[in-house]
Amino acid sequence: MEHKEISILGAGLVGSLLAALLSQKGFGVDVFEMRGDPRSQKIGEGRSINLALSHRGITALKRAGVFEKIEPALIPMMGRMIHDLKGNLNFQSYGRASQHINSVSRSGLNNILIDHAESHGVNFHFDHKCSQVDLESVAMDFDDPSVRSVSSEVLIGADGAFSMLRRALEKTDRFNFHQHYIEHGYKELHIPAVNGTFAMEPNNLHIWPRGSFMLIALPNPDCSFTCTLFFPFEGDLSFDSLKDDASVLQFFETYFQDVLPLIPDLVAQFQTNPTASLVTIKTSPWVKNRSLLIGDASHAIVPFYGQGMNAGFEDCRLFMEWGEKLKFDWDKLLPYFSNHRKADADAIADLAMKNFVEMRDKVADERFVAIKKLESRLQEAYPDSWIPLYSMVTFSDIPYSKAKKLGELQEQIMRALPDDFDPMSHPLVPIIESFNALKKDVL
Amino acid sequence: MEHKEISILGAGLVGSLLAALLSQKGFGVDVFEMRGDPRSQKIGEGRSINLALSHRGITALKRAGVFEKIEPALIPMMGRMIHDLKGNLNFQSYGRASQHINSVSRSGLNNILIDHAESHGVNFHFDHKCSQVDLESVAMDFDDPSVRSVSSEVLIGADGAFSMLRRALEKTDRFNFHQHYIEHGYKELHIPAVNGTFAMEPNNLHIWPRGSFMLIALPNPDCSFTCTLFFPFEGDLSFDSLKDDASVLQFFETYFQDVLPLIPDLVAQFQTNPTASLVTIKTSPWVKNRSLLIGDASHAIVPFYGQGMNAGFEDCRLFMEWGEKLKFDWDKLLPYFSNHRKADADAIADLAMKNFVEMRDKVADERFVAIKKLESRLQEAYPDSWIPLYSMVTFSDIPYSKAKKLGELQEQIMRALPDDFDPMSHPLVPIIESFNALKKDVL
Repeated sequence: MEHKEISILGAGLVGSLLAALLSQKGFGVDVFEMRGDPRSQKIGEGRSINLALSHRGITALKRAGVFEKIEPALIPMMGRMIHDLKGNLNFQSYGRASQHINSVSRSGLNNILIDHAESHGVNFHFDHKCSQVDLESVAMDFDDPSVRSVSSEVLIGADGAFSMLRRALEKTDRFNFHQHYIEHGYKELHIPAVNGTFAMEPNNLHIWPRGSFMLIALPNPDCSFTCTLFFPFEGDLSFDSLKDDASVLQFFETYFQDVLPLIPDLVAQFQTNPTASLVTIKTSPWVKNRSLLIGDASHAIVPFYGQGMNAGFEDCRLFMEWGEKLKFDWDKLLPYFSNHRKADADAIADLAMKNFVEMRDKVADERFVAIKKLESRLQEAYPDSWIPLYSMVTFSDIPYSKAKKLGELQEQIMRALPDDFDPMSHPLVPIIESFNALKKDVL
Repeated sequence: MEHKEISILGAGLVGSLLAALLSQKGFGVDVFEMRGDPRSQKIGEGRSINLALSHRGITALKRAGVFEKIEPALIPMMGRMIHDLKGNLNFQSYGRASQHINSVSRSGLNNILIDHAESHGVNFHFDHKCSQVDLESVAMDFDDPSVRSVSSEVLIGADGAFSMLRRALEKTDRFNFHQHYIEHGYKELHIPAVNGTFAMEPNNLHIWPRGSFMLIALPNPDCSFTCTLFFPFEGDLSFDSLKDDASVLQFFETYFQDVLPLIPDLVAQFQTNPTASLVTIKTSPWVKNRSLLIGDASHAIVPFYGQGMNAGFEDCRLFMEWGEKLKFDWDKLLPYFSNHRKADADAIADLAMKNFVEMRDKVADERFVAIKKLESRLQEAYPDSWIPLYSMVTFSDIPYSKAKKLGELQEQIMRALPDDFDPMSHPLVPIIESFNALKKDVL
């Protein structure tokens, strides 16, 4: 049996970044990935091809010294561009003037991270499908007959929502596991470039909120957009109900009129592209002996806050920070990480579910828009005191669990506003005072 | 590959009863059980050796014509006998005069059910450990080389909280799964008979409620009692903290003074008997093609309402009733069962968790006792209108989900009573009127 210092399962975004960080720290790191080397392959079907990178992810990437390689490929998105039924546009900025999130290609980012980790001495083993993990001996078996078995000082499962390491943990006593699929699935559609340029304003995240479902679009570097339709699997208006070409076309004509001309082969795409499901996974503990789950393997979330990747990257940053604090004493660090990160993972999972309702429904709501305006005034006047929930999650390092609690207090205050409050003149002082009083009780 | 009409995984309580019921209906039924024939074996370690059989379970057993064989082995328990710190006793009846639950031996009951099913033509295959289920072909593989593979028209997984059929379902897309271990474990202790008779009053369920933990005892036919200590795994006062003999003894001296003389070898039992964990499992859907989960395999619950077995037996009754309604058209019946029983399984899971707090803490509470008295008057005066929650769950066939909703309304009403209400003179009419008004809104 081969023996390694640190083995990481999964060469995805989180596995590659953590490998680089640990290798930079002087550890011997081997990464085992069941798929082939993505740098020589096409992108897997059914995965999102672009993601929203924001502050937490960037902080971690900077720590690994890789952000400068990624920055040129980012497309800033300054806010939400809301498309109504008639195609009218309404812009809502995400934060203060310079604050934005970034559209980035999953595969491009992954390839840069693998290159970066490799250049720092990480050994990648592609086409290595782990068939079994033994938690007692910290050993993995592989399907590949040339490398049957590998043991390690430390094993980290960064192998995603269907983690093999988690499968081993699931068989242990007192392992808590929660896996919930939402009623909606998603389907990606492609808006091509028009005459070499973007078919819509590129520096925004486009949303077509339609109550119980929605369409979104993120820009790509080749001037195309990737659209994602989030839509119920079953019911009167659902993937299930759109069986033939005519019903697909009619559906888009009714709900996404302005998109139709941008996707000439819409019906063909709709019938060909896969429909994928959306899952929330919560687990605890994330650790057993010298094995640890990280990223989606322990806390997969729905994509509606754009935080899945960012949370995984933040996992890596915290793992390194806490590792330094605990001198990389694995028997302390692994349980410490599991105990201290769990509440934040739960918080962002819940926030992401809640944001689905906001994105598909509330963004089109008058009161929602008024509250956003008032919050923007509050933040301007009291930048250290009132940070809107979206900004705490997206543009800060405030732990998700704390952000969630503060957000609940903010919501409580905003709910108490009269129906006809004027966002531009409503007095700010009483709001800040009651917020500060509530904060004292909660934090 | 052998082919069967109906295959049931698991010859436990639910598997055996369902096998008998289906066989009585004329179906060919084979039951595959990984353990040996329990009729020629000792009881498995770590399983509760007695259970509380109540109305729902009895209804199902009667349907199978097996209740008369079980009845002689039952020990009626008329209510809770509460033991305080000083050993003072306080009796709380479970229901109206004749209403009671029944202590029954798990293994004795299981053996009767297997005998009964066998006498009705069911084929039992013991020592058959299922290694894999193929949901597409409704086929099972076994470790046993003599029977490698069995396919079936219908496969029913009655194979408990660690179901192999569920393992196959867990790998399918959009399978929701929730597995939660509580902070408490349990340990069984044995109070022997004294001079051939019971050491305590036999026709009650004895409870030593101690706030964050509790001890209970159920009578056995040999005049012994089986005690169960429900106690945190970790913390200041926990299984973890009672490391040596002296601390075990001191713990019992402090909290269970009156039990100490009844268990001469207490410390030895405590150190030898296993500590087991307690899990809630929720899943959905319970069905895929022609395979169905039933009983603990789909909805394992904590034992604090005494409803795990009763819920499983009620599953069997409903499966047969709905089966007759749908003419045993499996492609209709299996999804129908999954869709219509799920809410009740969720409800009893939640009620069972809630009842833990009631048993270990509230039963010793003055207001709780006063409310019980008032409820008893309400039931006496309005027997068709006000049935206390415990009675709906334990002594009726009212669906668990409906009982839970009604119980919430009752609780809402009781919470609104003044601190100093007199349970013996408080007027009943306004309570019934507001309950009836609330019911109209909810049901």
